[in-house]
Amino acid sequence: MTQREVKAAVLLIGDELLSGRTQDVNLQTIAKFLAPLGVQIAEARVVSDVSDEIVGAVNELRRKYDYVFTTGGIGPTHDDKTADAIAAAFGVGIDVRDDARAILEAHYKGAQPLNEARLRMARIPDGALLVANPVSKAPGFQMENVFVMAGVPSIMRGMLQDVGPRLEGGAVVRALTIRGKGVREGDIAAGLAALEAAAPGVSFGSYPWFTPDGFGLHLVARSADSAALQKAGEDMKAMIRACGAEPEDVTEAS
Amino acid sequence: MTQREVKAAVLLIGDELLSGRTQDVNLQTIAKFLAPLGVQIAEARVVSDVSDEIVGAVNELRRKYDYVFTTGGIGPTHDDKTADAIAAAFGVGIDVRDDARAILEAHYKGAQPLNEARLRMARIPDGALLVANPVSKAPGFQMENVFVMAGVPSIMRGMLQDVGPRLEGGAVVRALTIRGKGVREGDIAAGLAALEAAAPGVSFGSYPWFTPDGFGLHLVARSADSAALQKAGEDMKAMIRACGAEPEDVTEAS
Repeated sequence: MTQREVKAAVLLIGDELLSGRTQDVNLQTIAKFLAPLGVQIAEARVVSDVSDEIVGAVNELRRKYDYVFTTGGIGPTHDDKTADAIAAAFGVGIDVRDDARAILEAHYKGAQPLNEARLRMARIPDGALLVANPVSKAPGFQMENVFVMAGVPSIMRGMLQDVGPRLEGGAVVRALTIRGKGVREGDIAAGLAALEAAAPGVSFGSYPWFTPDGFGLHLVARSADSAALQKAGEDMKAMIRACGAEPEDVTEAS
Repeated sequence: MTQREVKAAVLLIGDELLSGRTQDVNLQTIAKFLAPLGVQIAEARVVSDVSDEIVGAVNELRRKYDYVFTTGGIGPTHDDKTADAIAAAFGVGIDVRDDARAILEAHYKGAQPLNEARLRMARIPDGALLVANPVSKAPGFQMENVFVMAGVPSIMRGMLQDVGPRLEGGAVVRALTIRGKGVREGDIAAGLAALEAAAPGVSFGSYPWFTPDGFGLHLVARSADSAALQKAGEDMKAMIRACGAEPEDVTEAS
């Protein structure tokens, strides 16, 4: 029986990602975390710290995909607009919530004042479930199929641990990568297209690489069907051998 | 006189970016390249190698922004779907074009056969202008306000050199970054919000950092108004000093 595909979107929020100030790494982390759980990222977006932009993207993505994962914009400063934007997107109220406030109180223990700014981090849209933050405590939250996480990568990774068990995954898509040194895309393109046409349920990709000591390509097959994936690996190796190169297996996280 | 703001979107195309196989670096490169030209990235999207997804995103973004920059999907293999998708998005035809073909012929010089797969790289939507590829020769192209570039970062960077002079930029937004070691966001949040409220045309951001030997934050002001930006820098420094820390200037590309 074929399991259904579960698809998700990632929404990265923050001016700093669009100005080039910050290099995003969260998309890759989330994709690699979700793949073995049977959740595939089908689309990602990066929006600025503008409420309307966040609201529009959230509403579009949460209706189109099984899950949405957001990062960024849940800190204490004025440019942290995600929590209010999520409330607006779902048309619910938002206020400082006792359980979130208690987490912050236990964390600060009076060493730092729980001022209005810090209390912003306890503002949770009505009806949301908290997401634990094992790093700096201020929680994320889950609103229906939307998971709202911090932008700081170490904190985001911590939150994923609490998010994972809440997901209902589907078919687990695995990838198999074969490396061919000195092989040119133009020489394997027709063969690779023929493989794709002959193997429903397997998708093939070709990624050229260039280094100071040479060039070549990585051929990647992706499928939820283990037998089909194994056959795809053998087929890709044969194709690389036909170009006069020795294929190498590449171990990758996804 | 205030110059108008010129806004652009980046569309990153490729399954490998969504599966986590590849860490994108092109968004940051494009943002840093465009900023001094007076073009600001207002949104970015990552879509898979699915024609309908590419067409939908291109049509939405090209109508919303002054420019759209795409990367990926213009190679010789079956999963390179961008050129055809752009033609579909604009409702124009696409075929192998003589000028693009001539570039490939001059490059390969018969050393590699100009087969059907390689000729895919000479398929150009009707009415598009070529974008020079100084690295591997196969051209990108410009279709109205949409610039179509390769996904391989070194090639993409090369293509930007040909794209830059074609852009009509607006106000150049500059950033000023001040570092405060040992300063907590919760202690400067109210002050930062007050600065933002008092300085129209300047946007302020706060980015906490954590390293093995401490923590702190970067305060960033962004504005097209040099005088306002300089004042913002002084104001941010004063705020950090008020927290008992010595502010440091940070030199960043954007």
